[in-house]
Amino acid sequence: MRLSVVFGGISYEHEISIVSAIALYQKLKTKIEYYIFLDYNHNFYLIESSNMKSKYFSSGDYTKSQQIDIGKNGFYTKGILGKRKLLDIGVLLNLIHGADGEDGVLAGLFEFYDIPFIGPRIEASTISYNKHLTKLYANRIGIATLPFILHRMSENLPNIQDFPVIVKPARLGSSIGITVVQDRNNLEYALDVAYEFDDELIIETFISGIKEYNIAGAKIDNEFILSIIEEPSKKDLLDFNDKYLDFSRTQKIVSAQISPSIEHDIKSAFKKIYSHVFEGALIRCDFFMHNDKLYLNEINPVPGSMANYLFEDFWSVIEKLCLGLPTKKKIINNYQYIDRIHHAKGK
Amino acid sequence: MRLSVVFGGISYEHEISIVSAIALYQKLKTKIEYYIFLDYNHNFYLIESSNMKSKYFSSGDYTKSQQIDIGKNGFYTKGILGKRKLLDIGVLLNLIHGADGEDGVLAGLFEFYDIPFIGPRIEASTISYNKHLTKLYANRIGIATLPFILHRMSENLPNIQDFPVIVKPARLGSSIGITVVQDRNNLEYALDVAYEFDDELIIETFISGIKEYNIAGAKIDNEFILSIIEEPSKKDLLDFNDKYLDFSRTQKIVSAQISPSIEHDIKSAFKKIYSHVFEGALIRCDFFMHNDKLYLNEINPVPGSMANYLFEDFWSVIEKLCLGLPTKKKIINNYQYIDRIHHAKGK
Repeated sequence: MRLSVVFGGISYEHEISIVSAIALYQKLKTKIEYYIFLDYNHNFYLIESSNMKSKYFSSGDYTKSQQIDIGKNGFYTKGILGKRKLLDIGVLLNLIHGADGEDGVLAGLFEFYDIPFIGPRIEASTISYNKHLTKLYANRIGIATLPFILHRMSENLPNIQDFPVIVKPARLGSSIGITVVQDRNNLEYALDVAYEFDDELIIETFISGIKEYNIAGAKIDNEFILSIIEEPSKKDLLDFNDKYLDFSRTQKIVSAQISPSIEHDIKSAFKKIYSHVFEGALIRCDFFMHNDKLYLNEINPVPGSMANYLFEDFWSVIEKLCLGLPTKKKIINNYQYIDRIHHAKGK
Repeated sequence: MRLSVVFGGISYEHEISIVSAIALYQKLKTKIEYYIFLDYNHNFYLIESSNMKSKYFSSGDYTKSQQIDIGKNGFYTKGILGKRKLLDIGVLLNLIHGADGEDGVLAGLFEFYDIPFIGPRIEASTISYNKHLTKLYANRIGIATLPFILHRMSENLPNIQDFPVIVKPARLGSSIGITVVQDRNNLEYALDVAYEFDDELIIETFISGIKEYNIAGAKIDNEFILSIIEEPSKKDLLDFNDKYLDFSRTQKIVSAQISPSIEHDIKSAFKKIYSHVFEGALIRCDFFMHNDKLYLNEINPVPGSMANYLFEDFWSVIEKLCLGLPTKKKIINNYQYIDRIHHAKGK
């Protein structure tokens, strides 16, 4: 089985994606066929595994690597006299966090070119990328989310009574642009920060010290493979360096100490969220638990370093995913309709 | 101002898109720079306007046209010695109905290559393409929709008490796979028909002879341009030939005879639906009116022949849209994050 990884992208999480790809390289090494880097100009580069170091990208050295083109069924090297050669990439793992990778742009591109890939499809991308739609979707299938207000740039400062709240851009992950606001005096500034990143914000109830549980998994051929449940380290908000550590994790961690009934609730919520939307992706769902009630916090359809550290045998999950990717219905072309119209017209 | 049109696509509505493009050719003629046809192999062809006839496509003659490649900022002709030339297409009008054009695949492709286009963006595509999400979205912003059940292939035959109902694939437009079911005996067959096209169905209350109102428009620079309101011809379900006529319309029609208050309700519902999601597209919303209450039926983010027949001055709407297309926030690349990590590590 062949697997290649695409990372980078035009996104606020571009660098996080590089960190994530390096972690995956460290985890899987020779199991990965090609490392494909997407830079800020939307050019693709083939990266030698010996160059999978963050400095190689930040210094701009990556431009010395071989540039490749995306096209039908995959990526092409530019050969002699313009003759292109299709690379045998196998399945492409989308490891681009945030815009491009999680907003449906690359899903559209890969679907257009008929490239088999691990990652959220377009509908799944939209549902998980926009936190407002995530809430609508979750509530519809019976999963609770914390109370929130949707706020747009043109609107007045909202009249919030209960602080603290957390202000988030509606369409970004990885803690970017997010502020916890303790009182009304700090609200406007928090909105300004978040509006740097999106035109729509979520202002959500913030419960300090709330219990958090993360779980990852995938549904393959109607069977779920679920990870262990993690209780992430207790910090209200991850800062820069925490985030780096978070995306570069490769060491398996210990399961959260929870009752079988909570474990059951978390797994059953995960399955509901995943089903019928996220097929083809390995996702991580982050939950809150407050007063014995479970709330969905967010869906990460391209989790940091693919949440490899949550699985006993990460490689076997990836292998199974590659073999069980969803297929599109084949649409047959016969021009029956136009012919029938012509026939009716006597032409 | 330059405008080009892309049509075809891999979709059950491929032929409808050809009909639609021919109607637009008849309406706008020399105002359109290039006609770009996307065939069932996902190849693009430059079509001479003299060949804008349905038979040219159904016969396969279109393959004699010049094939072009999509790439950064637009489309390229293959020149001598592999040297490519960028076509000056101006703004690209997405006239692909159904899959590819309305499900976000082409939106992803055009966004990736930074091609300015008229049509729904990815989020808008997902919301309008999946009828279930359309209902969630509409209800959330205070617009009613008819009662429905979501049904999946693996589920038992639903226990419906009140007939008639209408069975629709969740993700198709243009009447394809849709059946009105009068009694329980005919339900299973209707589900089988719809399951030819999608794995999820909507089973909706069907009200025979219900009033229908269609309106089209766009928001450009915070101003709405709305069409007249049409009461479409009274048929419960359009058949093949009706559909052909519907997508090939170029003659302006008369406004529906409705009270100012109903007109106000329809326009205000349209504005709510459009706002913050459909920027960049000219959409048509189809409403029902029953017992003085307005219901959203569906959102067409790429309406047949762009609903040109609903506008007094269709060309000026297109012109304004081209000049007021939404822009993406520019993301600046500075590798601050990786550099900071390296700095902290003393490397």
